[in-house]
Amino acid sequence: MADQTVAIVGLGLIGGSLARDLAALGHQVLGFDRDPATVAAAQADGCIRGAPGADGPSGDPFRGIEEADVVVLAVPVSTAPGVLRGLAPRLGASLVTDVGSNKRSIVAAAGAAGLGDRFVGSHPLAGDHRSGWEASRPGLFRGARVFLCPARVEEGGAEERRRVLESALALWRSVGAEPEVVGAAEHDERMAWVSHLPQAAVSALGAALSRAGRDASELGPGGRDSTRLAASSPALWADILLDNADLVAPGLAALEEELARLRAALGQRDGAELQRLLAEARAWKQRGG
Amino acid sequence: MADQTVAIVGLGLIGGSLARDLAALGHQVLGFDRDPATVAAAQADGCIRGAPGADGPSGDPFRGIEEADVVVLAVPVSTAPGVLRGLAPRLGASLVTDVGSNKRSIVAAAGAAGLGDRFVGSHPLAGDHRSGWEASRPGLFRGARVFLCPARVEEGGAEERRRVLESALALWRSVGAEPEVVGAAEHDERMAWVSHLPQAAVSALGAALSRAGRDASELGPGGRDSTRLAASSPALWADILLDNADLVAPGLAALEEELARLRAALGQRDGAELQRLLAEARAWKQRGG
Repeated sequence: MADQTVAIVGLGLIGGSLARDLAALGHQVLGFDRDPATVAAAQADGCIRGAPGADGPSGDPFRGIEEADVVVLAVPVSTAPGVLRGLAPRLGASLVTDVGSNKRSIVAAAGAAGLGDRFVGSHPLAGDHRSGWEASRPGLFRGARVFLCPARVEEGGAEERRRVLESALALWRSVGAEPEVVGAAEHDERMAWVSHLPQAAVSALGAALSRAGRDASELGPGGRDSTRLAASSPALWADILLDNADLVAPGLAALEEELARLRAALGQRDGAELQRLLAEARAWKQRGG
Repeated sequence: MADQTVAIVGLGLIGGSLARDLAALGHQVLGFDRDPATVAAAQADGCIRGAPGADGPSGDPFRGIEEADVVVLAVPVSTAPGVLRGLAPRLGASLVTDVGSNKRSIVAAAGAAGLGDRFVGSHPLAGDHRSGWEASRPGLFRGARVFLCPARVEEGGAEERRRVLESALALWRSVGAEPEVVGAAEHDERMAWVSHLPQAAVSALGAALSRAGRDASELGPGGRDSTRLAASSPALWADILLDNADLVAPGLAALEEELARLRAALGQRDGAELQRLLAEARAWKQRGG
């Protein structure tokens, strides 16, 4: 993983931060984005090679992508499968990956597009509620966990599979991340609980407070921290939640049940039950930090 | 508010931090706590005057409290009314206050104990999920909002009421806080939404994740921030939630409804409705910071 040509499709918070780090490591970075102003900003910052995309109605928005040794899709999860399908015939890269929050759909799309042997899905646990190139920054992945989901696990070509996985591991380690290999289904199930449910819960809390006419400025310091995720991008998150809907819905139902249990304890003035519930949450938080 | 004798009953995070600040300002601080080790620690730190309480079965746990010009109750909301009732006949203080998260119950107890003219309830929006003397620190109230709820608002004695409210304002301003006067009922309604509901929601989320066998260590950075309040003291919070149960329950029901709405949008793969919900939460968060 030295001196390669890396194409990054989508220069938002994640794609943009990766472009910054890889350029700093001396790679040739080809940057693509549907917004010409974003491409121009990334060029002006010296992070991507000059004008690869001509993004006009008649131009080729992915000009030069054939040269890339590595291709990284950093577009929303609802867009990624279509982009991958469209690009597949042109890609000569030995490693194709993405950065999406869900892995079942993109891994399936890669397989269907004939990229199974060269695709390893990635999901870096990095970033925050901000988005776009202007939110991108160097070092975003330092110390971050990155889940890697190889597209093909059960069929032949063990040697090739090992090599492409090694490339993905090297890519993420080179920017300071800590990759961990996991199956796509297991990944999505885990994320439904520990990422998508917290996001949905915080957004629901914000919506409930908004509807009750309570301003976020009335929150104390704890409430402010708790609701920070409410500022996340609605478009990005609607995408993620929809794409993983079958696994997120049971989590929402479980949370509703827990709230109803709390409410029942309040209605019955049952202090012992209330304390038991709060203590369970505290023990969970203290175990996991 | 200079060189007074201030009695603080309960040397936890809030009472302890107030003792530190008032001692540093040159006041005589009498510190009381049901835990003799806490009193000893506060004495060793030089924050309270030597051994006022003899906290034994035969001793007087509040020895010397008659001398205090100001009395601050910093005990849990379920304990405070009883402590106030017991102490009322002994108090010569011109200002009696508290630091509890709810104000209706303590203000009612102060009136019933004949302290209506001298009691102003206080609720500093300070502290975090930690508790106890070891969590107390200087400067905790600097810049913090403090709600003040006078016990008597409708009857005679306007001059006396003005004076006691001025004392409470001076007390909190002297430690850097920003006091704001509000009625007890309005205060409790507001807190039910912007403090108690977020705490209950985060605890319910933690309990749901715990029950699903998901460890808090699996959370990303956003999820970690969102669930910090889950580490709050179960005993303190069961008290607060129970004491304000009639106003907290509707908030819980509203949140359950919002979650069910989200879940329905997922079930119907209704991306537009999902985005609308998330956008409402984001607009709310961005308005209030």
